[in-house]
Formats: sequence, C-alpha cells, structure tokens
Amino acid sequence: MWRTANTRTRLASCSGAMDGGEVAWRFGAAKPELAAASAQIKMRALVARIYGCLDKSDPRPVVPLASGDPTPFPCFRTSPAAEQAVTAAVASGKHNGYPSGTGVAEACSAVATYLSRYLPYELSADDVVLTAGCNHGIEIMMAVLATPGSNVLLPRPGYPLYEARAALSGLEFRHYDLLPEKGWEVDVSGVEALADDNTVAMVIVNPNNPSGAVYSFHHLAEIAETARKLGIMVISDEIYEHFVFGSKPFVPMGVFREIAPVVTLGGISKRWMVPGWKLGWIAMTDPKGVLREKKILDSIIIYRGISVDPAAIVQGAVPQIIANTEETFFTNVMKVMRETAEMCYQKLKAIKWVTCHHKPEGSMFVMLDMSCFDGIDDDIDFCCKLAKEESVVISPGSGLNMENWLRITFAVDPPLLEDGLERVASFCIRHAKPIMN
Amino acid sequence: MWRTANTRTRLASCSGAMDGGEVAWRFGAAKPELAAASAQIKMRALVARIYGCLDKSDPRPVVPLASGDPTPFPCFRTSPAAEQAVTAAVASGKHNGYPSGTGVAEACSAVATYLSRYLPYELSADDVVLTAGCNHGIEIMMAVLATPGSNVLLPRPGYPLYEARAALSGLEFRHYDLLPEKGWEVDVSGVEALADDNTVAMVIVNPNNPSGAVYSFHHLAEIAETARKLGIMVISDEIYEHFVFGSKPFVPMGVFREIAPVVTLGGISKRWMVPGWKLGWIAMTDPKGVLREKKILDSIIIYRGISVDPAAIVQGAVPQIIANTEETFFTNVMKVMRETAEMCYQKLKAIKWVTCHHKPEGSMFVMLDMSCFDGIDDDIDFCCKLAKEESVVISPGSGLNMENWLRITFAVDPPLLEDGLERVASFCIRHAKPIMN
Repeated sequence: MWRTANTRTRLASCSGAMDGGEVAWRFGAAKPELAAASAQIKMRALVARIYGCLDKSDPRPVVPLASGDPTPFPCFRTSPAAEQAVTAAVASGKHNGYPSGTGVAEACSAVATYLSRYLPYELSADDVVLTAGCNHGIEIMMAVLATPGSNVLLPRPGYPLYEARAALSGLEFRHYDLLPEKGWEVDVSGVEALADDNTVAMVIVNPNNPSGAVYSFHHLAEIAETARKLGIMVISDEIYEHFVFGSKPFVPMGVFREIAPVVTLGGISKRWMVPGWKLGWIAMTDPKGVLREKKILDSIIIYRGISVDPAAIVQGAVPQIIANTEETFFTNVMKVMRETAEMCYQKLKAIKWVTCHHKPEGSMFVMLDMSCFDGIDDDIDFCCKLAKEESVVISPGSGLNMENWLRITFAVDPPLLEDGLERVASFCIRHAKPIMN
Repeated sequence: MWRTANTRTRLASCSGAMDGGEVAWRFGAAKPELAAASAQIKMRALVARIYGCLDKSDPRPVVPLASGDPTPFPCFRTSPAAEQAVTAAVASGKHNGYPSGTGVAEACSAVATYLSRYLPYELSADDVVLTAGCNHGIEIMMAVLATPGSNVLLPRPGYPLYEARAALSGLEFRHYDLLPEKGWEVDVSGVEALADDNTVAMVIVNPNNPSGAVYSFHHLAEIAETARKLGIMVISDEIYEHFVFGSKPFVPMGVFREIAPVVTLGGISKRWMVPGWKLGWIAMTDPKGVLREKKILDSIIIYRGISVDPAAIVQGAVPQIIANTEETFFTNVMKVMRETAEMCYQKLKAIKWVTCHHKPEGSMFVMLDMSCFDGIDDDIDFCCKLAKEESVVISPGSGLNMENWLRITFAVDPPLLEDGLERVASFCIRHAKPIMN
C-alpha cells in the first residue's frame, strides 16, 4: 500500500506545485468520422427523449414497446440448457484464459454444424469467425469493406449501426428502399439503379428488423441474382434466423451461395433470448472461394485479431448451448411470438388512423404508417405525447430515416402488450383529426 | 423447414442459371489502414512461427514462456468467489438482456469504489466506462484521440495493440524509450524531445509489460509533470494493477490527477486471472473536468455506444467479484509470482550470455538482452532454435521492435518454469561463442 502518511504529504506538495497557472491542454477536437457515426444512431437519443416525456404521476405501468429486448419477461427467459452450459463452462475453469484466434475451435465447429443443418451443404469451422455479438460482426464487415472509394448498399428502413460503423470506417453507404406495399421486399430495381463500379456489397436483413417481413425463397434468389449481376457480395443479417411465426419459413441466404458469395451475420442473441451474452458469428458461404481469393476472409481475420473477443466462458458453452437446448424451448417462444404478433396486428388494424401494411411474420417489430393527427406535428411528437399521456413508449420512424412512421415491438408479455396497444388506440381516437374539419 | 424436395429442385435450377460465365466481383482490395495495423502485431505471427519449430519427437513437455496467460495452471486459477459471482449472475436470469449504456450501473459503481480504495479521493460511477477487456479500452482511446494531425507517444518496448489500433484509426504514434539501465523507467527527456504541438497524449504501462518494472511514486510524479508541461493527457495502462511482488508498491497514476488529466485503463483480467472474461474499464481521473470540457468523455461514450459491450453476465457479476474475493486469493497468487520472478531472475543471471538488467517486480514478464551466439543470427533465430532443440517457447524482442532482446514470462507453474529455464541455460551454453574465436 503506497498510501501512507508520508506519501500523502508528498502528494500534497506535488499538487501544490501546479497552482502556478492554467495549462493549455492540447487534446480535444472530436474526430470527424466519430461525429458522423454518432449522427447515424439518432434513434437512441430519440428514445431517451421519449422516455423523458413519461408522466411519473401516471399510476399505470410503463409499456415498453420501443426496444427489442424481451429478456425481462419470464415467458422469454432463455433455456435452462443454455444457462447450465455457461455455468458448466465457468465451473470447469477451462475458459478463463485468452480464447484463441477467431474463436474457440469447438465453438466454431459447433456453429458450423448448426448452420449446416439448414443448408444443402456442410460449412466447416474455418468458415466461421466468432464475434462479440452480431453488432461486432457488423463492425468488422463495415471496416473490412471500407477500401478507398468503395460503397455499400443498405436497406431503408434498416438497423442504424450499419450506417454508424460505415461512417466511422469511412465507407460510403447508399440506401435502397424496402417496399411496404410489397411486404417490405427489397426494391431490386432500386438496388440496380444505385450500384456503380465501386459498389462492393449489399446488406439484407432477414427476418427483417424493423418490418417483421420474412423473405421468400423466390425473393432471396432474386436478390442473389441481382448481386451476381452487379458483382457484389451479399451480407445477410440473420440475427433473427428461425425467429418466424407466420406462413413463410426462414430461408438462409447461404442457400444461394452458388449464385453470389454470401457473408452471413448471426448469433445466439435472439433465438436463445440472450442478447447480453454477446456471442455472434460471421459465416462465409463461398463455395468458389471468391471471398478467400479476394482476401476478404484475410481482412476479417486481421481485423478480428486486433479487435475484441467474445467472452471465453460463453464461447466455451456454445457447443452445449446448441446441443442441449430442446426444440420445445424454441417452439414455445415462437408460440408466444405468434400470439403477440397476431394481437399486435389485429389491434393496430382496428385503429383507422394508422396503417400496418403487412402482418409481421418474423423478428420482433412492425412498422406503422401514421396519418395526420390533431395537434401532433410528426412521428416524434406522436411518440412524446403518447408517452406523456399513456405511458407507452414506441419508436419514431425518424430514428430510421422513416419520417411519420412508427416502430413497435411485440416481443412483450402478452397482457402488457394488450394493455399498451389499447392505450395506443385510445390515444389515436383522442387525437384523431375530425374528418370534415 | 424450407429444405423440401421441391426447394432443392428450385435451388438446383438457380445454381444452374449461373454456369454461363465468370463474374468480375468488385470487392477485394484490402484497406490500407488495416494492412498498416496488421504490420504492427508481428509478435503473434512470430510466436506462431516459433511454435512451428517445435520438434514433435521431443518427449519432454513444451514449456510455454511466450504469452502471458497463466490460467491453464491450477496454482493460478481464479478465486471461487469470482466463479460463484458469474454463476449467480447467470442463475438470476437478470443479465441476459442488453447491458445499458457504458456499463451496468452497479458494476460501474463497484469499479469506482474499488479504484477509490487506492486513491486519495473518491471516483464516481460516471468516471468509469466498462469495456470488453482492456484491449477494448486501448481501441477506444486510440480511436478517440485520432483527430486530424494529432499524435500519441507510446513506450518502446510496449504492447503492440496500441500501435495497431492507432494505425487503424489513422493516429500517428511516436516511440519514446524505456531505459533498461534505469530500471526501465520512462526516458522523460526523450518524451519532451518527441512531443510537438500536435501531441495529445502519452501512454505508460505500469506495472510494466514487458519489462517487469514497477514505477516509483517519484517517477510517476515526474511523468505527470512532464505531461503537464507538454499539455498532454496521460493514458495509464494499469492492467497489471496490484500485480507486484518486489520492493515497490503499486501507485495508481490517478494519484497525480491534479497535475495532469489521467485516463486509466484496467480490468479484472490479470489480478483475478480471468483474461478470457473480457471485462475491463476506462477510468477518468480529472478533478478539473478537463477531459469533460474537451469532450474526450463525450467521444469515449459515443465510440463505446457504437462498439461492443462486455457480456452482461460478467458485468452483473462485477460487484460480487470485487466484494467477495478474499485478500488471501491475491496474496497467494503474488506469493507464487514472487517465487517464479525470483527463480527466473536468478536462473537467467547465472547464464552469462544473456543480461537481465532488472529484477522483475511486477507484471508477468522480463526482458533479456542477448549477446552473440555461435550460428544464431538474431533473436528470432534464437527463439526458433530454442523451440526446436529444447521445446521451450519464448518471444523474440523483434515482435516489440527490440531486436536481439528476448521476452520471457514467468507466470508459469514453478516446476515447469524451472525446467524451462534450465533448458534455456543448456541451450545458451551449447551455442555460446568461444571467447577467443
């Protein structure tokens, strides 16, 4: 212990030594790319502002329909097998050290086998890089693709971290539209019109956040053919893989790997209901070795090597998490999701001043097109007043570059969701514009 | 399940559609900053190459004296309290969701209280940002400081991730020397000579990796005064905080916060022997609010907000890890480290063809100055031949820009370390240059 009476005296004399005047500290200016990145994630600040509008005197519970984190609700607790797997990894004492390379070998292998279940071919452990959550995979891909002059095509609406990480890496991004009137499918001709010689990749999100769409085999094939035509890779964000509860099955983009090289981003966050465990992956489905030949895999490995590791105790648990989670866990969760998605859609459809173009079939979100309300300026104002008057928090579309749209999550305990949606309906009725004003 | 006979047929026809010709894929060139970053972490490739030199027919155990990961040895297993804390966090089901902001509030608060034990003032939770390991803290600081034209002063020898992350962020770095003949102290006049108007920070590592030095109160005060004179902040890498076993106590740089603003990087990796748990922190010791006023804290928060989170199950365990780990755990580990450091120093001192300038008093490493050996070209060749002939793996100084130096870790089970050091001695004797050649 250095802190003796003696050192205290010496410290005092040190401090005294600098009373002579102000120092002109040389650090300070913010990095321009950091400011540009920050500007892309406006949703977080908007949601914080909306939470700030809550009326604390309202005795009703707050209904949180903004962010997609169902984990506080008992019906969405992770599987006992997953918890046991991590507990066993900790108890073994074998996962305290540095996890090697791009992921613990057994975990990469288990993920490869898991993904191969749903593909018409086998992935190997070498095709998989483990990441500290899917966001880390997004970070890595946006950094790796940021070669001078290149650009990437991103969906609108989408997931703002893509834009933020592209901005931080100095990678130009361009938005193609998802088409609400076509079930939020990719505007394929828009993609073709946007791309140029410097376009290197397009990102799709399937099952889709924030629209709840699940893309058909046919549509995914069309996307793959478009990518091939343009000579670009497809980055398929499948963090909501198998998180489907409608008529369409989940089809991994990797199925189309013969058409165009596919980089799949995924993780255990959503399907296992453990976003806080921060375990994701990048999977390369690249039978012709294009990604390897073009050094994309090398760049991913280099970047990953100077980036963070997922916690070794979670990596060590991955084989058991995958092997031991019973199918009934997934089917039970999807049963609740089917119920809440249905309830959400029916209740929203009954509100005539908002339009839900498409019944959500996957992910945890749905988008609402809002019409004009009396005394409500825009989507942000709608959300602020809804929070204040009804203690319901939803996300304004502006946070996703979708002005006058709203985003609602239905991954909420059913009775609370029902209560929240009824309050949304009351609010809309109260603020409805008289038809013949 | 999409994978029916029907979809298989459709897939086959899709694949068939692209046999028409080769596609000119547009992606590929590696980002220059990524290549520059990769070039900085040559140690990893060097150590891999040295492992490749091992003679598999040697029946003796391999003695791993290259990387500082003591966790495989039972004498260095983490405290039962730490394991129990994570197990309890998992069992609670409360840490499966997204960890909020820059760290779970209780964990930030626990870290602030913990660090304050060793400081003459109290840190608050707001002074602490949790990171996914100390490497993540390095990443964040190198990114935040990378404003146009700025430069940072880094120690040589040092920890190559600083150089790699600076290169990736486009931050210029300049090396100041640590002085072996002065117990690896910072060359303060060298620092002054290196700095210019664009210098924003200097990094120190204390207790020091790779030299094993522990800086005195007086030397740290001198560093703080130098930083003040230059108008720069001190980034103090204290990942080896309290990891001391010599005559000098560990003094946190934050003690000198009145002289210059200090950003401390730390974590539970070393003291608790859990580098794989990936829980670190950035602590701001900044009584005059310079870091806040100059928006450094804002930039850290922005960067952290678009970066990864440490696993919530570890964050949730932090208060109990800190509160429940008994002092005897630390004293027992330090007892073993004192023994291995002493053994390492004495055994190396007895080898007359290498020079250990300074007995290690902290961290897990010591640097060796090598003289000329018969038929050995340089430090890399030394390490390759040592691996081949003696099944002992040590690190070449070249990996740290210290040609013809060697780095050895002594955080190894004592009998194995002794065996390894004896093999190093045999090797040196065998390859010694005849005195009067």
